[in-house]
Order: sequence, then C-alpha cells, then structure tokens
Amino acid sequence: MNFPVIVTVTLREGIADPEGATIERALPALGFTGVTHVRAGKSFRMTIEAADEASALEKATALAERLLSNPVIEDASASIGTSAIGGSA
Amino acid sequence: MNFPVIVTVTLREGIADPEGATIERALPALGFTGVTHVRAGKSFRMTIEAADEASALEKATALAERLLSNPVIEDASASIGTSAIGGSA
Repeated sequence: MNFPVIVTVTLREGIADPEGATIERALPALGFTGVTHVRAGKSFRMTIEAADEASALEKATALAERLLSNPVIEDASASIGTSAIGGSA
Repeated sequence: MNFPVIVTVTLREGIADPEGATIERALPALGFTGVTHVRAGKSFRMTIEAADEASALEKATALAERLLSNPVIEDASASIGTSAIGGSA
C-alpha cells in the first residue's frame, strides 16, 4: 500500500533562525500584529510504499534523520498526510 | 490568547521541483526503496495572538498568501499546531 507521508524539519530551539527573524520583523509593516516566535523550516511530502502505516512512518523517520535533516541543529518529525500526491492505490 | 500556528507552503502540482527530484534519486543508494513523489516545501511555525482559533487561522492564511508564498507557483495552508514555541499563556 502507498501512504502519503509528510516530514517536517525544524531548527532546534536555541539555534539562530535569521529567516524567521526577518519575517517577524517584516510583519508589522504589512499590517500583521501579534505574530511572534516565527521559525522557518522545511517540509517534504512523499508517497511511501509499505505494508502498514506504522512501517511507512518508521521508514519516513529513518530517512528524515539520515537524509533530510541535520540532527545537530534540526529536529525531524514524520506524520501520515491527508492526501497522497500520487494517489493511494 | 496565543495560538501556535503552522503554515505549510508547497509547490503547486505541475511545477518542477528539482530539490524533491534530487532527494528521490538519492534514496535508493541509501537503502530506501518504495519512496516516490517527493516534493520539497517550506514550513513556518509561529505564535499568533487572537481572540479565537478561527481568527488566528484567518490571520495566518492572509499572511501566508501575502508574505510567505508565491501564489503563482505555490499553495499555502495554515493549521493550528499542537504546541506553541513561546508558550500558550
């Protein structure tokens, strides 16, 4: 079975995030107030072929940690998505 | 009230995604098979001060479309996160 999986990679707390800080500084000029703690990260969607949801998630977590993130400065998490990009046949 | 919000920006279907394609090509060499349709995107976490969840989401959607994404090639979606980065007091 194919499972739609979403992997989210975020900077660990305490790691400087210039992109997030710049976005936060730009917001008031565009009329958005009350937005704080902006942190930028990456998101990856993919379709994983596996026997069941648990093993799809396990595979996604392994590849997120090995390929998609730098564990020294980033946290990675995987979750089952709501819709497959390539169908879920 | 402060709400943790996650904004996800993904490339629209049909838009070329060299980053996702490169990741997909690298996976078999690392021992990951059965992973297809890899699409790279961005994810932003933030804390939004609003009267209720609905208006926090509305504000997040507006800023996602105006500041965080390019609507010509990208889709943006906002959702309430599970944990605030800066607390939810």
